[in-house]
Amino acid sequence: MSADDRAMMRAALAEARAAAARGEVPVGCVIARGPEVLAAAGNEREARGDATAHAEVVAIRDAGIALGGWRLDGATAFVTLEPCPMCAGALWQARITRLVYAAADPKAGGAGSVMDIVRNPRLPHRVEVESGLLADEAGALLREFFAARR
Amino acid sequence: MSADDRAMMRAALAEARAAAARGEVPVGCVIARGPEVLAAAGNEREARGDATAHAEVVAIRDAGIALGGWRLDGATAFVTLEPCPMCAGALWQARITRLVYAAADPKAGGAGSVMDIVRNPRLPHRVEVESGLLADEAGALLREFFAARR
Repeated sequence: MSADDRAMMRAALAEARAAAARGEVPVGCVIARGPEVLAAAGNEREARGDATAHAEVVAIRDAGIALGGWRLDGATAFVTLEPCPMCAGALWQARITRLVYAAADPKAGGAGSVMDIVRNPRLPHRVEVESGLLADEAGALLREFFAARR
Repeated sequence: MSADDRAMMRAALAEARAAAARGEVPVGCVIARGPEVLAAAGNEREARGDATAHAEVVAIRDAGIALGGWRLDGATAFVTLEPCPMCAGALWQARITRLVYAAADPKAGGAGSVMDIVRNPRLPHRVEVESGLLADEAGALLREFFAARR
């Protein structure tokens, strides 16, 4: 993973922190094509009253609007937490080329931990996956958020 | 499955037909709680330029807005085609109690055909699933749509 990847994940972490400040589970996502950021979003589930408003789904929607079409071939999604099954499926549907996530989610991860939706050999295409970039920071943010709520 | 279930699936088929008329892959979804329709939507992927704008995701969003919160416990989703991995994950995230789908999707179905995201024993909760209701009508609609495009 490159210095550019690290900068993109730092931007995703900033989105996660902003989500925490709004009382949302702190997850952030940046979608980029090369050096160009197509969309950046944090989790908005509670504010929107919408179970589908995870950071990844919001960012995929915004990236499609930015590009004028839903196909995100050639783009990379940087996410601070391993995507859930819905978000892994959304990245797959959007034809994202590459997924980089920070912390793994052993309870509900849909990109390798509980299921692997983005690399299922029975589906017609797959997404490249890398993980662990800035995972300590992303994990600490989530732990602090849930500790403060107990 | 009851007469009410059949009426709800007929409404989902009407949404699928309206989607086809707009040039979208014809899939429709109705979300109901008992006799009350919370949301009804067809696929809007092309019109919105949004890979996540499948009928189920649009209906889940609208149902959350209608109820003032994202939890759809006690609700049933009626879908004309077996949900893809994203949509199966979205129904799971929304805590939908029951999923009824018409036609199966052997290529990309996420509720039993290729994967079973809504009944994965490793995830913290599951969705009840029934299938086959008005499957011939739903399947014919899809076949006609794709035949006309070839």
